[in-house]
Amino acid sequence: MPVKKIELDEKDEASLKNRLFIIVFGNNTKLGRRFDIILLWLILASVLAVMLESIPTIGPRNLTFFLAVEIFFTAIFSLEYLVRIWVSPHRRKYIFSFWGLVDLLSILPTLLYLLFPAYRYLLIIRSLRLLRVFRIAKLVKFVNEGQALGEGLRSSFYKISTFLFTVMITVIVMGTVMYVVEGPENEFTSIPQSIYWAIITITTVGYGDIVPQTVVGKLISSVVMIIGYAIIAVPTGIFTAAMVKAASHRKECEICKYANDMNAKYCSGCGVEVR
Amino acid sequence: MPVKKIELDEKDEASLKNRLFIIVFGNNTKLGRRFDIILLWLILASVLAVMLESIPTIGPRNLTFFLAVEIFFTAIFSLEYLVRIWVSPHRRKYIFSFWGLVDLLSILPTLLYLLFPAYRYLLIIRSLRLLRVFRIAKLVKFVNEGQALGEGLRSSFYKISTFLFTVMITVIVMGTVMYVVEGPENEFTSIPQSIYWAIITITTVGYGDIVPQTVVGKLISSVVMIIGYAIIAVPTGIFTAAMVKAASHRKECEICKYANDMNAKYCSGCGVEVR
Amino acid sequence: MPVKKIELDEKDEASLKNRLFIIVFGNNTKLGRRFDIILLWLILASVLAVMLESIPTIGPRNLTFFLAVEIFFTAIFSLEYLVRIWVSPHRRKYIFSFWGLVDLLSILPTLLYLLFPAYRYLLIIRSLRLLRVFRIAKLVKFVNEGQALGEGLRSSFYKISTFLFTVMITVIVMGTVMYVVEGPENEFTSIPQSIYWAIITITTVGYGDIVPQTVVGKLISSVVMIIGYAIIAVPTGIFTAAMVKAASHRKECEICKYANDMNAKYCSGCGVEVR
Amino acid sequence: MPVKKIELDEKDEASLKNRLFIIVFGNNTKLGRRFDIILLWLILASVLAVMLESIPTIGPRNLTFFLAVEIFFTAIFSLEYLVRIWVSPHRRKYIFSFWGLVDLLSILPTLLYLLFPAYRYLLIIRSLRLLRVFRIAKLVKFVNEGQALGEGLRSSFYKISTFLFTVMITVIVMGTVMYVVEGPENEFTSIPQSIYWAIITITTVGYGDIVPQTVVGKLISSVVMIIGYAIIAVPTGIFTAAMVKAASHRKECEICKYANDMNAKYCSGCGVEVR
Repeated sequence: MPVKKIELDEKDEASLKNRLFIIVFGNNTKLGRRFDIILLWLILASVLAVMLESIPTIGPRNLTFFLAVEIFFTAIFSLEYLVRIWVSPHRRKYIFSFWGLVDLLSILPTLLYLLFPAYRYLLIIRSLRLLRVFRIAKLVKFVNEGQALGEGLRSSFYKISTFLFTVMITVIVMGTVMYVVEGPENEFTSIPQSIYWAIITITTVGYGDIVPQTVVGKLISSVVMIIGYAIIAVPTGIFTAAMVKAASHRKECEICKYANDMNAKYCSGCGVEVR
Repeated sequence: MPVKKIELDEKDEASLKNRLFIIVFGNNTKLGRRFDIILLWLILASVLAVMLESIPTIGPRNLTFFLAVEIFFTAIFSLEYLVRIWVSPHRRKYIFSFWGLVDLLSILPTLLYLLFPAYRYLLIIRSLRLLRVFRIAKLVKFVNEGQALGEGLRSSFYKISTFLFTVMITVIVMGTVMYVVEGPENEFTSIPQSIYWAIITITTVGYGDIVPQTVVGKLISSVVMIIGYAIIAVPTGIFTAAMVKAASHRKECEICKYANDMNAKYCSGCGVEVR
Repeated sequence: MPVKKIELDEKDEASLKNRLFIIVFGNNTKLGRRFDIILLWLILASVLAVMLESIPTIGPRNLTFFLAVEIFFTAIFSLEYLVRIWVSPHRRKYIFSFWGLVDLLSILPTLLYLLFPAYRYLLIIRSLRLLRVFRIAKLVKFVNEGQALGEGLRSSFYKISTFLFTVMITVIVMGTVMYVVEGPENEFTSIPQSIYWAIITITTVGYGDIVPQTVVGKLISSVVMIIGYAIIAVPTGIFTAAMVKAASHRKECEICKYANDMNAKYCSGCGVEVR
Repeated sequence: MPVKKIELDEKDEASLKNRLFIIVFGNNTKLGRRFDIILLWLILASVLAVMLESIPTIGPRNLTFFLAVEIFFTAIFSLEYLVRIWVSPHRRKYIFSFWGLVDLLSILPTLLYLLFPAYRYLLIIRSLRLLRVFRIAKLVKFVNEGQALGEGLRSSFYKISTFLFTVMITVIVMGTVMYVVEGPENEFTSIPQSIYWAIITITTVGYGDIVPQTVVGKLISSVVMIIGYAIIAVPTGIFTAAMVKAASHRKECEICKYANDMNAKYCSGCGVEVR
């Protein structure tokens, strides 16, 4: 068999690469979908293994088992990565694409660990290995509906940035004021720490690890809370308006494809009567 | 009377079953509605009894009273369950329907407790008995408006799934990063624990039992909070768009196809009366 | 002056009552508005006095001052209450109306305290006096915009009830499950206590006084959090849809007053062409 | 060069002022934009310096460095402030405008500190210096999109005020009730403190520093939480309705008054070209 493979002429190889490309990158064929589903379960299983390994009562007692599991998954994902590079028509483009980097990132930590086991920086490498959990990001590829949502977010991206920018400024100003009012003796040890408190408060998370002690501090705190409570309306309003607009049905003109209003009689794009 | 009942011919029994079916399952007749309301109050009373029994200062001192109350309610609900099975035209369908299982679940724990009192697994059985609180789920049947809301949720189910899926991935990735950054010495004892923290933070619940201690941890934490604060807009936008769309149902004119208001009498497009 | 007042014939008294009625109950005349604004500031001042009195470092040291202030405000509000009763054309209706009861409630505690100072139930009466803070509720009268919002809420009242009802059932079921899972040793001391925890969690308040300790508890907890985070969309969607509908402009027919669509050519109510 | 500058006749000076005005106040020319971007980075750098100085492990060890940095930034911003005053056609108007005051506020604390270093009120002056963080507010000027959002907020300002007013009254009433129910022994030490608790709870922040201990307190607490959870819908609904309305601007046909889409070329109502 290997002999035969070597003897494959260029056309056959191209055809094999093409078929593999359709299976590995596409999801329109039956085989392509099956490949995707198997990969999906492998990713989930490998993420689960990483999680289980991190639990103090499970991981340290089964080091050999988890190492074996890890090598198994890394081997599979490495193979997948190499195949993807091989069959890709624009190799460089794939390697430096977002998903190419995610694919690399999900195998790199284990490879480093296996290649340089002699090094004493084991602890740091171990935490690098945790990056394998990023494999979960691969799952996003399987979602199409995400794109619709993404477009909704993108169309209101600039407005949401403005909102976040305003929140940022509010948080910096309020954090500084609280640092002056409460001071280091009440856990507001520095401006960044006070800004951290302001973020906790304005997002209504409210851990309670840093809380105002003075009367003035509580007053300002109340203002920050109510601001946070009221301005949640802003991102919601922006995004909802975008969604409502997207949801409003349109009657497409058969001639110029202009998306007319549902109750239009004449096309707004070319002036011809529409049905 | 019992003699007469036994003498009932098949037609009479069928008629009795039919009438009972209308009373027990339907809510269009006066008797059916009265039956529903009495059942409603019985369910609420029984749930209240379970709650009161669980309070340390009330339950243990009145064991006999609560046992009697429990037997009383179980007898009534068992009778109701048997009647429902008897009068149902498709018995198997009812038994294995959602509400059939809820009806069974609300009597089973007490029956088990009464049938096998000798068993020493009292504590476990006691907690099973708490499942009686699920009787509260029976109340949902009485709500019609729920269906309208349910449809709104269903129509945006796929989008909300995508949203929850994205939240899930964010939470796993952020949890893992925090586990690496904070480590077991700061209560981030394992990846699942860190993911639990990420869920607490992204949903803006913020218990405060697990909080970041390091500067980097607080930075990442702030990012998670702001993500959580901003993307609450997504489910809200999706659902609101669905509701707005549902609120603007239109009655199309048969002649000029103008999308009239639901309560229009004459078409706004051509002036002809619309049905 | 008092002599002249007694000599007033019935017509004059009726005219005085009428003028007072317009000042006290109305807000269309200059005097009526001025009366409202003075009353507004008096209410705010009296509420502030009650608040200040409750502060441990202020109240106990100035008992005589706060008593004098209290008698002053009670005298004014008592006078206002009596005038309102006197000038009201439907006295019984006013006395038992919501605002009539609020007016009574805001003077009653102090009157009781002044009439029966010998009684030793001082502490309880003192807390009754705190009800004077309800005077703040009088302020609502000055808000007209509130009605528009109120209508929005009322039109979606039934849907919001259904939502709250579903939340209630979720909270009872989840609370009971957590009581079984966590048990009294982890602060989930009773079912009502566990339901209290579920409310804290589903509303994303998250005090952190009751937190799950077991792995299963944390898992269920996460589900409750995500439910709470996602279904906030429901009341928001309902209310927003109502607001959007209310905000959509309408073209009123000059003949039948039907609120036509903005782009209607013919009135939907009577079929006549509209401008 | 300075000699030549002095010799500038009035026309030249006016022309220099004019050119500087376009660069400093405008953002339409290339130079104006470049000036804005450089200023942006200087502001960010200076704010960062203030933050770093406040950190206990960084600030006290590098006092001289931070003082130098501070003098550097203050010199630049003072120069900018003077140039703005010089080139402004309406000097008084600029000085007392919002941004004029912000510009002054961002240099004043350091100037005071440098001018009166002998004074022993160093600690208070140090906290005044923290006001330099307000420089961040200058950034808002660079955002144009903010205006669109601002208009959305302004158009619904009155409704949001009503909402906040209602929240305020709810919070005062609930806080007082809780003060009566829980009392000073459970951390509800005064009415203002209890109102602070009510704000923490209704905004779903939930620090957990003040929590109810009694059964009645927990019940009222639950009501406040659910109110807070449900009425978040109100500001969101108001703002979203304003955004949706703003998103659906229409271009009215001059002939048939049909409300066309903003990018329509031909009227949907009569087929005539629209401007």
